[in-house]
Parts: sequence; C-alpha cells; structure tokens
Amino acid sequence: MTAQEKLIQRQLKNFHICVGLDTVINKIPEYLRNAKNPVVEFNKIVIENTYESAAAFKINFAFYEKDGLKGIENLLATIELIPKDILIIGDAKRGDIGNTSQMYAESIFNYFKCDAVTLHPYMGFDSLEPFLQFKNKLNFILALTSNKGAEDFEKLKLNEDKFVFQKIIEKVKEWNQNKNCGIVFGATNAKELEENIKLFGDLPVLLPGVGAQGGSLEDVVKIFNAAHNQNYLINISRSLIYCDNSNSFPATIRNEIVKMNSIIQSL
Amino acid sequence: MTAQEKLIQRQLKNFHICVGLDTVINKIPEYLRNAKNPVVEFNKIVIENTYESAAAFKINFAFYEKDGLKGIENLLATIELIPKDILIIGDAKRGDIGNTSQMYAESIFNYFKCDAVTLHPYMGFDSLEPFLQFKNKLNFILALTSNKGAEDFEKLKLNEDKFVFQKIIEKVKEWNQNKNCGIVFGATNAKELEENIKLFGDLPVLLPGVGAQGGSLEDVVKIFNAAHNQNYLINISRSLIYCDNSNSFPATIRNEIVKMNSIIQSL
Repeated sequence: MTAQEKLIQRQLKNFHICVGLDTVINKIPEYLRNAKNPVVEFNKIVIENTYESAAAFKINFAFYEKDGLKGIENLLATIELIPKDILIIGDAKRGDIGNTSQMYAESIFNYFKCDAVTLHPYMGFDSLEPFLQFKNKLNFILALTSNKGAEDFEKLKLNEDKFVFQKIIEKVKEWNQNKNCGIVFGATNAKELEENIKLFGDLPVLLPGVGAQGGSLEDVVKIFNAAHNQNYLINISRSLIYCDNSNSFPATIRNEIVKMNSIIQSL
Repeated sequence: MTAQEKLIQRQLKNFHICVGLDTVINKIPEYLRNAKNPVVEFNKIVIENTYESAAAFKINFAFYEKDGLKGIENLLATIELIPKDILIIGDAKRGDIGNTSQMYAESIFNYFKCDAVTLHPYMGFDSLEPFLQFKNKLNFILALTSNKGAEDFEKLKLNEDKFVFQKIIEKVKEWNQNKNCGIVFGATNAKELEENIKLFGDLPVLLPGVGAQGGSLEDVVKIFNAAHNQNYLINISRSLIYCDNSNSFPATIRNEIVKMNSIIQSL
C-alpha cells in the first residue's frame, strides 16, 4: 500500500487523529519502568489500544536518537510493531543539500521504512527533491509551526505582500508533481488556519499543537469542516499517551481516542 | 576545553580548513573496501593525515544514519578517533519545538560528544534555545546555504527591506548571549559574502560549498582578509577526502590540506 492509500483509507472512516509516539521513560506508568524494554513495551500498548481508531502514527525521532544506539533499536522495534496498513510518519525534520538529503531519505524511507517524513523547507527545492522522488511516500513540509518561534521568521511579511509561510505553501503546491507533498501547520494558529485554508488545495495537512501546546481540537475540526476539507491529521502526543499513569492506562487511552473521534464526528 | 577554545587555538595558527567526513563506501579507495570496517578505517586515515593542519572536523550525520545501527556505530567510532583538542562539528541540521530540540541537543552534545552542531533557523528562537543552553558548545545556524535552493526562500526580500538570510543573521547576533552561536554561509555566494560580511560581527562562520559545489577557496579567503575577519571555517569534504583513490591517498590528502593552508597564508 502506498502512503497516499493508507492515509485515504483512514480518512474515509473519518479518522483524523495521528498518535504521536513521543515516549520518554520518566513519563510512562511506573509499573512498566522495570520491564525489559520499557519504551517499546509502552509503545506496544499505545499502538494496540489506538490502532483501530487512529489515522496515523507519528514517531518523533529526537526522543529515540537521544538514547543513541539503544534508542535506534527502540525506534526500529516500535516501527516493527505498527501494522502495515496505517501511515507511519517519521517526524525527523530533515533538510540539507541534495546529496545529503538523498542519504536522509534513504535512512527514513528505506532503512526505517516510514511512510512519511517531516521536512524543513528553508534550503529550498533541491534540498527536498530527493525525498520527493519517492512517489509512494508522503513529505510533510513545515509551513507554519505550533511554537512561539513561528513569529521569528515564518510569520514575517515578504515584500511581495505575503507571509513567508504562505510563500512556502505556494511553492509546495508547485513541487507536488508526484502528489506526495503535504504541509505542517500548527494547530495553535487557528486564526491563520482559517485565513489560509483555501490556499492548501489538495495538500494533506499535519497539525501538531493540540493538547499540551494549547491548540483546540474542536477549533481545528470546525475550520476544516467549514472549508469542506477532510484532508488533515491532528497530531496528539503527550495529552493522549500520558493521560493516565496508572495500571489501567491501556483502557484509558483506548477510550480517550474513541472520545476524540466522537467529538470530531459530532462537529 | 570548550568548543570556543578549540576553535580559537586553531585559528591562531591560521588554520581555516574544516575537513568534512562525508564518507560513502563506494567512493573510498578500493584497497580499503574489504577492510573489517571500511568507513571507520578510511576516516581514521583521513583524520590522522589532516589533524595537524585542520581547523575542525565536520561529520555529516546523514552519511551515517543511512546505514542505520551500523552507521551509528561508525559515527561513534569515528568521533572516538578524533583527538580531543580539535573542534568536532555534528552536521545534523536539526531544529524542532523546544522539548524536541532538547532531545536533539542531548543526542548531539551528550551522546555523540560533538563540540558543535548545525541548526535550521526556520522555527525560530525557542527551537534553538535548548542548544544555546550548552554554553561550551557552538551552534552554527543556517543563514545562506551553498545550494541552488537558497534562491527559493533564503534570498527572498522581506518588506522591512532586507533578505530573509540577513534577518536571520541579525537575530542570531541577538541570540548570542552565551557567545556560542555561529552561522552557516555558503561559499558559493561570494557576492553576498562580500556584501554582508560586516553584518557578521564576531559570529564564527562555517562556509560549505568550496570544491565539489563550485565555491572558490581563494575568493572566500580574500573577502575575509579584506574585512580583517579571521573567524571562519571553510569546509572541504569530497574534493579533499576523495582526491586520490589509489593506495597512496594518505600522503595525497596530507599534502593537499598543507597546500590549501599555504594558499590561505599567501593571500
């Protein structure tokens, strides 16, 4: 199955929650911390209890890379646990000159077997091109991010009377010849989302920032509904996977994602 | 020794060449390809034969990450081979929201024990801050890169009548409270280098793009000399480490970097 097919299959079920596997050992329930491999054990339970209701899984590479070799082993083991019919986004935020991006693309798509990746646009087209050559993968390019620092450069106005992030969206649409581009648009920017959603065209949108970062699930869904656009993924990490640190967390997160889906479907 | 001390010590010797360890197995001399660990064996020879004349080593993480666990092992083994008194730049081009950048910083500075890193500025201050908290490390932030894609966003004009890359340099100077920031400025942009060098202040400058990418060593050195600025590193990767694929390559690269230093000192 291609990344595009995996995404559509879940969107047709009206699933839009992307489960972020931002796992850190000191946040997982205590009873698991003495397991042989706590991070993978925790991820296994999260995957098993959200898979049926999720639109995608997103793996934040930084959380694994910080543990070096052991972390890479955990990353591989986690990807192995995810069923093959659901999108896996490698949230690695890469981007470099062409011959280097080629290596990063091989790492994320071939070695780790992710279906999708997140990318920095700053270095322009040739820094993204090696990723875009993978036709059956999806490339989510940062447009407007969820953090405060989005003000520093992303929201600056260009002299052609558009914001930097708007220029990036425009370019990503141009570069979407293989229908394998998407954008990252922070859910904390509800006003900008509403004002710019018509710009997105048929680009899938990955929205981080709901939950711990303060974005509102309801606001995002209402804006997409009003625009008759169902091509979006709302990432939820900390506020879902750590919502219960007792022994009964598997049932809690299972209920929590079902509840989120109900909210989405009720709007 | 701090990263700043390592850099200054070499600059005082008038050393400005940063040796880029962008190692790929099919480019190393054939006689080494059957070694037990060809990549590390090759890097060892490059390090031993350039260490005395180099200003720094730069390790392009992508070239190692593409080989997964084995690549990470090679990266660790390579770092282990570099003497502790010379700057090691982890060329990883990271950048993410604060809690994620924190993990990347721990990975690069604590786990891999690099002295410096390259960073994407796009997500703004809070995406860089966790790196900037490491006072004894150096953070080279992308300003103007050496690739064609630099035209796409970096060279766009803002309505405050400056280019995006100029705005970034301005901000990096503001954020340099711990004297641990630098910038990346592509050597392929000689005109922009000449026009903007006064902007750099006391930020160390890492210049990729000489050699395989077409930038000129002489042009760069002349521009820095004319500005009475010696705070720069010229990265050379492919055109140095693969300049001879015969059995006598150790002597060739040893001579080659000495020759580059002579050129620099003659200008």
